[in-house]
Amino acid sequence: MRYVIGIDIGGTNLVVGAVAEDGSQYRHLRSEPTRPEDGPDAVLARLTTLAEGVIAETLREPGAEVIGIGVGAPGPLDTRTGVIFLTPNLGWVDMPLRQRMADALGYPTTLDNDANCAVLGEWWQGAARGSEHVVGVTIGTGVGGGVIIGGRLYHGASDCAGEFGHTTLDAQGRKCKCGNYGCLEAYASGPSIANRAVEAIRAGAVSVIPAKVGGDLDLVTAQEVYQASQEGDEVALEVVRDAARYLGAGIANLINIFNPEVVVVCGGVTQAGDRLFAPLRQEVTRRAFRPAVEACRIVPGELSGTAGVYGAAASFLQLFPERASVPAASG
Amino acid sequence: MRYVIGIDIGGTNLVVGAVAEDGSQYRHLRSEPTRPEDGPDAVLARLTTLAEGVIAETLREPGAEVIGIGVGAPGPLDTRTGVIFLTPNLGWVDMPLRQRMADALGYPTTLDNDANCAVLGEWWQGAARGSEHVVGVTIGTGVGGGVIIGGRLYHGASDCAGEFGHTTLDAQGRKCKCGNYGCLEAYASGPSIANRAVEAIRAGAVSVIPAKVGGDLDLVTAQEVYQASQEGDEVALEVVRDAARYLGAGIANLINIFNPEVVVVCGGVTQAGDRLFAPLRQEVTRRAFRPAVEACRIVPGELSGTAGVYGAAASFLQLFPERASVPAASG
Repeated sequence: MRYVIGIDIGGTNLVVGAVAEDGSQYRHLRSEPTRPEDGPDAVLARLTTLAEGVIAETLREPGAEVIGIGVGAPGPLDTRTGVIFLTPNLGWVDMPLRQRMADALGYPTTLDNDANCAVLGEWWQGAARGSEHVVGVTIGTGVGGGVIIGGRLYHGASDCAGEFGHTTLDAQGRKCKCGNYGCLEAYASGPSIANRAVEAIRAGAVSVIPAKVGGDLDLVTAQEVYQASQEGDEVALEVVRDAARYLGAGIANLINIFNPEVVVVCGGVTQAGDRLFAPLRQEVTRRAFRPAVEACRIVPGELSGTAGVYGAAASFLQLFPERASVPAASG
Repeated sequence: MRYVIGIDIGGTNLVVGAVAEDGSQYRHLRSEPTRPEDGPDAVLARLTTLAEGVIAETLREPGAEVIGIGVGAPGPLDTRTGVIFLTPNLGWVDMPLRQRMADALGYPTTLDNDANCAVLGEWWQGAARGSEHVVGVTIGTGVGGGVIIGGRLYHGASDCAGEFGHTTLDAQGRKCKCGNYGCLEAYASGPSIANRAVEAIRAGAVSVIPAKVGGDLDLVTAQEVYQASQEGDEVALEVVRDAARYLGAGIANLINIFNPEVVVVCGGVTQAGDRLFAPLRQEVTRRAFRPAVEACRIVPGELSGTAGVYGAAASFLQLFPERASVPAASG
């Protein structure tokens, strides 16, 4: 069996796994905290050790072969040169990550955007399996996304495609941390959802949320809001409904623009289940063209812990050999 | 020389021309009013006569050959079956236009959306020549668009891609004729621009526009507003600036989504020149990501009268033979 090593570099965790070339299975999934405060060299040294362990385990299987490494990381980055320009969450600047990983691990290596990888993973082995045209929206600390056209990741002219979080939905709306007003991210990201709940509670609304954080509202995350929404908490329900409406308007735009077969929504927000998806679908139906809505399924991602690793491996298979680094000849 | 006959069916005019297969030139451009009130059979009979004339002229050139017919028409339509579902401007319903034109003219025929064709024409021989990833916005009675990815028209799952006019920019904004609120089209279409000027004048604003229509405000079209804006009329300038801001927000969204090399803006609105493009580019810069803005030119279309004909011919070259009708065997 031939394997690709998928590496998912997040602000919180590093995840590595070996993915069969045909996508049929993954092996030896390992993960550890990123701890970006250690600095890039220390993080990459730990990541190398983690990946070497996965590779060694993989090669123990009779007939197993490792053909390359696919890395998914936050951007902006350049898939042609393999350089990360800037990752605010990690504090890396102009990092030639692809060549460094190729040299450290000794295999051809590709680099792609983490949101792209998550969506590609869902297309390859998850909720969007078998579709040709797919739009994915990833919701976490930020709101991002990816586009699959004709079964291939679409990168755009300079690897910036798919920044759905910073599309304007309300030209005079809430200020977004990007400096713009009324971006989708200002309504639907994890921190936005937490902030809006906290704002309501500080303004006097009664909620079960404070009890979940020992009364310290600075500790509220989207997680508590999703939990509270499932318990029927009114504040949480209103915030989730409102995020769902904006997310619905944003997805309606994407449906009118791409006419995709599937929109896959990835991230913790999908834990809110129908409390999210029912108003979201309602808003989409209200705003998008019927023939485009009828052609499209809107589904939660299926690969919550592994989409990034699957997608990084799939990205290797799509980008190699045009956009890959090969290991420097060792001395 | 091998030619494709390009046919552009609009609500106002029918335009036909012979386009060289390599796009280097067009010949025998002919046009006449559509007069949809005559009914579909009469319109198609006149269109057939017009196209037969162009074909006959074309074949008079020594060595000339006609290889097929590309038709661009308003939709929604199905490029696979060649059927127009509904064209509100023409009053056609479930019209098997592609087969009818193939049978009438005796050549293999393809059918595509008119906005797609306009953008494809600009990509092939106009303002977006030589680019791989192009987004086009067409502004007329409605606001539409088209997407070129890797040098090919992107149609989406069911030929509905590119409906940029009905993307939400202001979730609580102006009602659009599609029933939704805050669509780009509600701010930037020709009729919206005319309506907003008329609203301001009816509310008492002083303007040169009424003098252009003999005082009958019901006769104001976007054309008068563009002319007045070039004469420095304050009402017209404010309406154009405001349309430019919304158009800028819409184009910023498209740049964050597609990261294209070129955005081409087609239609009469480009007559307003820098009075449109200066505030539009300013709004884009304010709202979109810098690396994506830096990778992208925003330009007016160059083929005002011929983009549709060029694009219909180019669409034939891309869709044939998979999505074509061939003439029925004659008895």
